[in-house]
Amino acid sequence: MRATIIAKPGDIRVENVPDPEIVQPTDAILGIVATCVCGSDLRDYRGINPVDEPHPIGHEYLGVVEEVGGEVASIKPGQFVIGSFFASDNTCPNCHAGYHTSCLHREFVGGAQAEYLRVPLADGTLVALPEEPHEEQVASLLACSDVMGTGWYAAVAAEVNPGVTVAVVGDGAVVTERGEEGITRIRELTEGVGADSVLECVGTAESMRQALRSTRPGGNVAFVGVPHDVQIDGQELFYSHVALRGGPAPVRAFLRELIDHVLAGRINPGKVFDLTLPLDEAAEAYRAMDERRAIKVLLRP
Amino acid sequence: MRATIIAKPGDIRVENVPDPEIVQPTDAILGIVATCVCGSDLRDYRGINPVDEPHPIGHEYLGVVEEVGGEVASIKPGQFVIGSFFASDNTCPNCHAGYHTSCLHREFVGGAQAEYLRVPLADGTLVALPEEPHEEQVASLLACSDVMGTGWYAAVAAEVNPGVTVAVVGDGAVVTERGEEGITRIRELTEGVGADSVLECVGTAESMRQALRSTRPGGNVAFVGVPHDVQIDGQELFYSHVALRGGPAPVRAFLRELIDHVLAGRINPGKVFDLTLPLDEAAEAYRAMDERRAIKVLLRP
Repeated sequence: MRATIIAKPGDIRVENVPDPEIVQPTDAILGIVATCVCGSDLRDYRGINPVDEPHPIGHEYLGVVEEVGGEVASIKPGQFVIGSFFASDNTCPNCHAGYHTSCLHREFVGGAQAEYLRVPLADGTLVALPEEPHEEQVASLLACSDVMGTGWYAAVAAEVNPGVTVAVVGDGAVVTERGEEGITRIRELTEGVGADSVLECVGTAESMRQALRSTRPGGNVAFVGVPHDVQIDGQELFYSHVALRGGPAPVRAFLRELIDHVLAGRINPGKVFDLTLPLDEAAEAYRAMDERRAIKVLLRP
Repeated sequence: MRATIIAKPGDIRVENVPDPEIVQPTDAILGIVATCVCGSDLRDYRGINPVDEPHPIGHEYLGVVEEVGGEVASIKPGQFVIGSFFASDNTCPNCHAGYHTSCLHREFVGGAQAEYLRVPLADGTLVALPEEPHEEQVASLLACSDVMGTGWYAAVAAEVNPGVTVAVVGDGAVVTERGEEGITRIRELTEGVGADSVLECVGTAESMRQALRSTRPGGNVAFVGVPHDVQIDGQELFYSHVALRGGPAPVRAFLRELIDHVLAGRINPGKVFDLTLPLDEAAEAYRAMDERRAIKVLLRP
């Protein structure tokens, strides 16, 4: 099959590799309908994360089930399915608590930018669509696999509810000021006390500081950007009265609900994709995102 | 009046000082019925906190109103009242949110180990009892002023509810192991995943680490011991999926409810006092707690 390989930072290739096979009886093999490039893939591409050896890349996927292992009970060949970037059994205490990305048997699903993909723990990981999706739903369904689910988790973790004030620290800011000026601006907009809920979507020391100081006492910060060199001072957090919860989004917990919203037309997260390319042009997809010519690129095998 | 002064670490004296007077029209002067020594007073006594110059000490109080300023509307002379260690207006956005210790006009109430005490923002700070308390209720009502209110806040902040598993990191542990062994023991007791709610009541780097690692993914740590030299690693917190909220307990938010529980006999937090002394023996109260001959000492002027 054709698969996207990151050979080293800045070097994306689409190559012929062996088709994936069932390894565990709980596996499924998907034919990929749509996949895409994530901001975290870009960290590899830019050499911010180490790339020790060439490896398949990609972890967001909408696919059709080609084959299942002998112990897979609920997922059937022919179904259209979506899963998260972490496989999860959906039965352990952490999954029951809604934190599937802390599943006691979690396994990273890698190599999704390809024609086929092996997904472990298929019954726990995958959610089947009721029928083959319409072409115009593909992008929004794919978005549920990570980017939409991560934003949704951030909102849940920050206790966003009707009526609360929300600030997002991330790309495409409404308030353009950063650092102390950004904090002052948010306070001016919120009775002088800060926002009820702040979503920290970057993962740097500066963005975390801005998030914490933009939140009112008693408010909530959710952080979904993997923190790099971030240390939080215990005493400052103490006196801030701000609650903090982060982590890799347990997308699986929200997947059924998000799919329902997409199929009913209530949300259209596929809008985030502003470029679609054939899988064989994956290298151009990375370049376009790296050079900010595209926000997020959808790939079709 | 007689008042307890910390002259320097290890040096507690009860001296004659001028009676407090109304300074702001929102002040009240209380005659102290009962007061006590806090673990945080001990930090001054032990020289862990700097004591730059001799000053009055104590911040927990049950009193009777002697006099009020011209703008005090709801608090009346003759009422028996309890307040928190932070005065608060009970009207600002942070008080409305239930975080009175982040009141925009908060003021520390110091010098409560004395015959009389000036309390700022009396209408917002003080809660009046329906009548003069019975002698056997005094200790439990006094406890609401800080120690009971702080424990209550920790439970609320850690989302303790019927059915959840709770671990307390602090003095008097059931699990006697510390550090990694303590974490392992808590995990053994909780399906291998950790407790739902953990109350961190110490404030050291070790106790914070133990609290965070004893909590299940999706669980909550509340921290109410003022953190000293505690840095929380952003990436570790991220992957733990644990939420963290701390701060000086907004006791005022819970005071009415706690007083009702005490008066109805549902809780008896006065049990924490295992020694009662006259105010003039405050130095012995500090010695007894410092030497662990007493857990907490009640003082009667």
